[in-house]
Amino acid sequence: MKALILNSPGDLAIGEVPDPGPPGPGDVRIRVGAVGICGSDVHFFERGRIGDFVVREPLVLGHEAAGTVESVGAGVDTLTPGDRVAMEPGIPCGRCDLCRAGRYHLCPEMRFWATPPVHGALAEYVVHPAGFTYRLPDDISFEEGTLIEPLAVAVHTGNLVAIAPGDVVAVNGVGPIGCNACLVALASGASRVIAADVVPERLERVVSLGAASAIDARSGSLSDAVMELTGGRGADIGIECSGHPTGPQTLIRAAAPGGRVALVGMGPQPVEIDTVEAMTREVALFTVFRYVNVYQAAIDLVAGGRVRVAPLITDRYPFDRAVEAFEYARAPRPETLKIMITL
Amino acid sequence: MKALILNSPGDLAIGEVPDPGPPGPGDVRIRVGAVGICGSDVHFFERGRIGDFVVREPLVLGHEAAGTVESVGAGVDTLTPGDRVAMEPGIPCGRCDLCRAGRYHLCPEMRFWATPPVHGALAEYVVHPAGFTYRLPDDISFEEGTLIEPLAVAVHTGNLVAIAPGDVVAVNGVGPIGCNACLVALASGASRVIAADVVPERLERVVSLGAASAIDARSGSLSDAVMELTGGRGADIGIECSGHPTGPQTLIRAAAPGGRVALVGMGPQPVEIDTVEAMTREVALFTVFRYVNVYQAAIDLVAGGRVRVAPLITDRYPFDRAVEAFEYARAPRPETLKIMITL
Amino acid sequence: MKALILNSPGDLAIGEVPDPGPPGPGDVRIRVGAVGICGSDVHFFERGRIGDFVVREPLVLGHEAAGTVESVGAGVDTLTPGDRVAMEPGIPCGRCDLCRAGRYHLCPEMRFWATPPVHGALAEYVVHPAGFTYRLPDDISFEEGTLIEPLAVAVHTGNLVAIAPGDVVAVNGVGPIGCNACLVALASGASRVIAADVVPERLERVVSLGAASAIDARSGSLSDAVMELTGGRGADIGIECSGHPTGPQTLIRAAAPGGRVALVGMGPQPVEIDTVEAMTREVALFTVFRYVNVYQAAIDLVAGGRVRVAPLITDRYPFDRAVEAFEYARAPRPETLKIMITL
Amino acid sequence: MKALILNSPGDLAIGEVPDPGPPGPGDVRIRVGAVGICGSDVHFFERGRIGDFVVREPLVLGHEAAGTVESVGAGVDTLTPGDRVAMEPGIPCGRCDLCRAGRYHLCPEMRFWATPPVHGALAEYVVHPAGFTYRLPDDISFEEGTLIEPLAVAVHTGNLVAIAPGDVVAVNGVGPIGCNACLVALASGASRVIAADVVPERLERVVSLGAASAIDARSGSLSDAVMELTGGRGADIGIECSGHPTGPQTLIRAAAPGGRVALVGMGPQPVEIDTVEAMTREVALFTVFRYVNVYQAAIDLVAGGRVRVAPLITDRYPFDRAVEAFEYARAPRPETLKIMITL
Repeated sequence: MKALILNSPGDLAIGEVPDPGPPGPGDVRIRVGAVGICGSDVHFFERGRIGDFVVREPLVLGHEAAGTVESVGAGVDTLTPGDRVAMEPGIPCGRCDLCRAGRYHLCPEMRFWATPPVHGALAEYVVHPAGFTYRLPDDISFEEGTLIEPLAVAVHTGNLVAIAPGDVVAVNGVGPIGCNACLVALASGASRVIAADVVPERLERVVSLGAASAIDARSGSLSDAVMELTGGRGADIGIECSGHPTGPQTLIRAAAPGGRVALVGMGPQPVEIDTVEAMTREVALFTVFRYVNVYQAAIDLVAGGRVRVAPLITDRYPFDRAVEAFEYARAPRPETLKIMITL
Repeated sequence: MKALILNSPGDLAIGEVPDPGPPGPGDVRIRVGAVGICGSDVHFFERGRIGDFVVREPLVLGHEAAGTVESVGAGVDTLTPGDRVAMEPGIPCGRCDLCRAGRYHLCPEMRFWATPPVHGALAEYVVHPAGFTYRLPDDISFEEGTLIEPLAVAVHTGNLVAIAPGDVVAVNGVGPIGCNACLVALASGASRVIAADVVPERLERVVSLGAASAIDARSGSLSDAVMELTGGRGADIGIECSGHPTGPQTLIRAAAPGGRVALVGMGPQPVEIDTVEAMTREVALFTVFRYVNVYQAAIDLVAGGRVRVAPLITDRYPFDRAVEAFEYARAPRPETLKIMITL
Repeated sequence: MKALILNSPGDLAIGEVPDPGPPGPGDVRIRVGAVGICGSDVHFFERGRIGDFVVREPLVLGHEAAGTVESVGAGVDTLTPGDRVAMEPGIPCGRCDLCRAGRYHLCPEMRFWATPPVHGALAEYVVHPAGFTYRLPDDISFEEGTLIEPLAVAVHTGNLVAIAPGDVVAVNGVGPIGCNACLVALASGASRVIAADVVPERLERVVSLGAASAIDARSGSLSDAVMELTGGRGADIGIECSGHPTGPQTLIRAAAPGGRVALVGMGPQPVEIDTVEAMTREVALFTVFRYVNVYQAAIDLVAGGRVRVAPLITDRYPFDRAVEAFEYARAPRPETLKIMITL
Repeated sequence: MKALILNSPGDLAIGEVPDPGPPGPGDVRIRVGAVGICGSDVHFFERGRIGDFVVREPLVLGHEAAGTVESVGAGVDTLTPGDRVAMEPGIPCGRCDLCRAGRYHLCPEMRFWATPPVHGALAEYVVHPAGFTYRLPDDISFEEGTLIEPLAVAVHTGNLVAIAPGDVVAVNGVGPIGCNACLVALASGASRVIAADVVPERLERVVSLGAASAIDARSGSLSDAVMELTGGRGADIGIECSGHPTGPQTLIRAAAPGGRVALVGMGPQPVEIDTVEAMTREVALFTVFRYVNVYQAAIDLVAGGRVRVAPLITDRYPFDRAVEAFEYARAPRPETLKIMITL
């Protein structure tokens, strides 16, 4: 079958890979319908590595995916051929202490799509465990289905910091994850979302998504703006999605006493944090890694109309132009948020 | 000044009471603008008592109130004359262990409006601590401002049971508190709210407020409906607002494994609970008493458009017809939800 | 091999059952060293059923067990032959939503020892998943190892109600589970444990285990005693282990404002609860079902000396007198707490 | 009356200050019995400032204090003359949002002893609110009573990170706060406490207090030691009490997946943190500021024997040698932990 293969940094091509074959017990075979491009895909494309994960063999990219069930393996009774589905892209071992404790996202044996040496979903077919394959309601498109993945990050983040109705939420960086964080904050009852970015087009978009205020971080300070907008009280919740080294400290400074800050964006390390400033207001920092046990909730939020992810899609490419899509993703227009590849 | 005075059970009249005078230090004097009638007001009117609280002296009724600041006492710098405000109707001691621990609603010295011997707010003026008086944004009317009180019950309930985005929420009984519970559940990201009542008009209304399903409890079972609608999984959250003795057990039966049930409605006691059934799915029961530390959040939810309380107001009376309003409240039309008295 | 087989209610005998054979992949084969008798074993012996679980075929009893690893199956690298181990007696599916969410004890496909139709551990050998088999340090005997099981119930209970250092804890009923609850409360920093029972010998024992006060429930009231001993404040935590229908209400009455009550003991249903009394102090009720993710913690508590379970063992029988042990368990001396069968 | 007065950095003397006079309403007058020297006292002595708090006027030092009630003001019914007491040294406003929410330690109007311009307790008498004055049981000495203050920091820390029975706890830095953190961890059921310091005498002491392992940080790494001792799993809880800039990162590295790290010690800022390393195991950081709502719990822990603080006292001076005590505190013997001044 055809797949989008990263042979080495910068060397990306559509080529042939072995068909995954029929689904084994507990698995389903899925005809891929759409795949969103994530920053990590582009990073692998450009650099060939993220931290300890190095592309040493040709790698199929893509982990934000939706499609149609083609056949089901033995013992699968939750899905049937023809079901439209979104796939949670990480498969944990299911047996270790972390899996048993409900933290399977931290499983040391996690196999995650498009993370070397595990192939991703930018291919005609994938075989995936039924337990990590979720039926999509009719009113959710494949493209929206791929966005369940970044939305899941935001839902998990919201659960970790426990956004409560009435909270003021500050979001630093409103790329795809930051936008999803804003949407989840609003769906969780945040009375006011204050977002910052350095791209004017992103600031416009986040306001259209419901943010009360959008701060241009090139000319203004998110923490100053939060303090001014809250009468000096600060934000109950901060969500760092920019990956910029000053992001954590900015959100500590923007936090209300007892505030909680989630660190989602990854960037250059280490970062400098004034822990004494954090202490004087007893601000807590929650680091976030992917998501766990929220994929169905994310789908339900979209299905129930609480969260609208469609506006996050800005660019579309058919699969045969997937290389072009990645080339574009390296230097997109400022208004680009999520690039979609349809199969 | 004029006030609505309950002299004895069934004997209610507008009469003269001493003007509260100028505000003392930390207090504000408020011209009352609107007062909502609560079930407890009607209960005192009819029976003259609720539990240990007995009307032994003439009592001014009303505790859901909003109005305009007329003057402020020494040391008050958060409010100024002319401010439109909603008032949190209970004043705790501020010094006991419970107050210090952030649970002032359980303060044994709580003085709560319209709870004998503390007079309520159905009067021309009240003097109230500035700390329990909250400025209303311009776009919240006095009538909506009175609804902050029952909304606060629902917000507090949601905090206790920690509604998470994507949760299925079952609400038993959709009078004013139950409707607010539905609104808060939706504002908290509930993917589906399933409500039950015995009054068809209430079922219609709760659907118009956003509930996905409304069950007529005269002919159907909320727990059966929840199980059917969730494919046998059950509700993550149950909120009992009917006060009916079978309510707790109904919601235990409707609960998913690990589900949490809030008991808000008060009714005949004791109730029968099958604790073994609860154990087998480890359902937890949270009892709810009024609210604490959520008044501002409730206002912000309305101000930010997350919750619309105006549709809950079904009947309006001017203050000089307040007795008539209470007579009506004893046997209202089925579509009546919240009766408002405007001053 | 030999096993203790319940053929029908009251008909118990040592007999031959098929040897479980060599361990399959991921499993270990264990020579059973000791098995404690639990109330549920005696209940099956006498009545032949607990709720929906009915003994329809001969059933091997016993689920509190420790022993020695004899051989390990393919892929097992955490245990080796000769390891002394305690076994967590329930095996969940590992794939359902509840298993994935860290609540495997509520897995609908749970296979739990000595719960029809799943055979228990009162046999010469068992084969068990390595993941649910825990190495015992040298200083924990097999007999103590079997007590990890009821201790796990208490640890899980403590986690659910979140006992904090300095808490006052009231325990109703101090049989084996209640004694373990006292031990866990003390190990969790409870400043005072107040226990009640109707058996004087149990009251003496619980004091020797560290309880500050022991109330004879035949002549006194636990809630009265708690209020007197705490100056009217009440208990932060209540743990119901008696199964008596009045237990929940007794602990609600004994609870401080904001108190949390765990319901562990199972008894006649339904129970009557005054939910309005609970509401006025916002008491929460947590129901408890077995345990999850705490077996290793329970072992560590014993190994580190925080909890001493050995004093709970009051009676010992060799395996060939196991029937006699069960006969004795039907009407034991009052000082009997835990009866141990050694193989 | 006599008091220990800091006139300017390095200029400390016993002198006369105005007697605080009789207690006002709600207050009690206390004859001070003992005062412990805290690092912050020594810091003010040496530098004359901590952050924004600058000694501009003569300041009475000391905030860890116990004594005897001499007289009580109007309305005080919880204490009587002759009561032996420990005093919580910070007085919040009691009215702001933070006070009402149970976070009075973050009150912006907090008046805290020996923090300019608020005088401390190294004087013959203090007048203090009865609500922040706690009766000591007969078996707790004044000296132990002063240690309730640093113990309260540790209890609050334990509550923030929610130590659960069976947890492995790593403590970095075992001065007075670190030792108390170890004691609280053990009292909370920690199965193993692994501590590090650079002072051999402190390592010896912490082992005598119950720590399972003590790591000399000059020659070894706490994170390496934790990983080795836990078979690569890591610590459930980390508590940073050294104030060293590498402390937070050391504890992140020592943390198990999902671990929680408390930052208690204050030191040079900013600190460098590898947030990506924290993310990959989803480690959370809780910053700690003093304590709130735990003074009684801390007393109860000592009274009930769960925590023994007496071994932390290493040096004693009578009040007339208080200056000498402070001089000693600038360069103490390595085995010095807590220096006590008795009046």
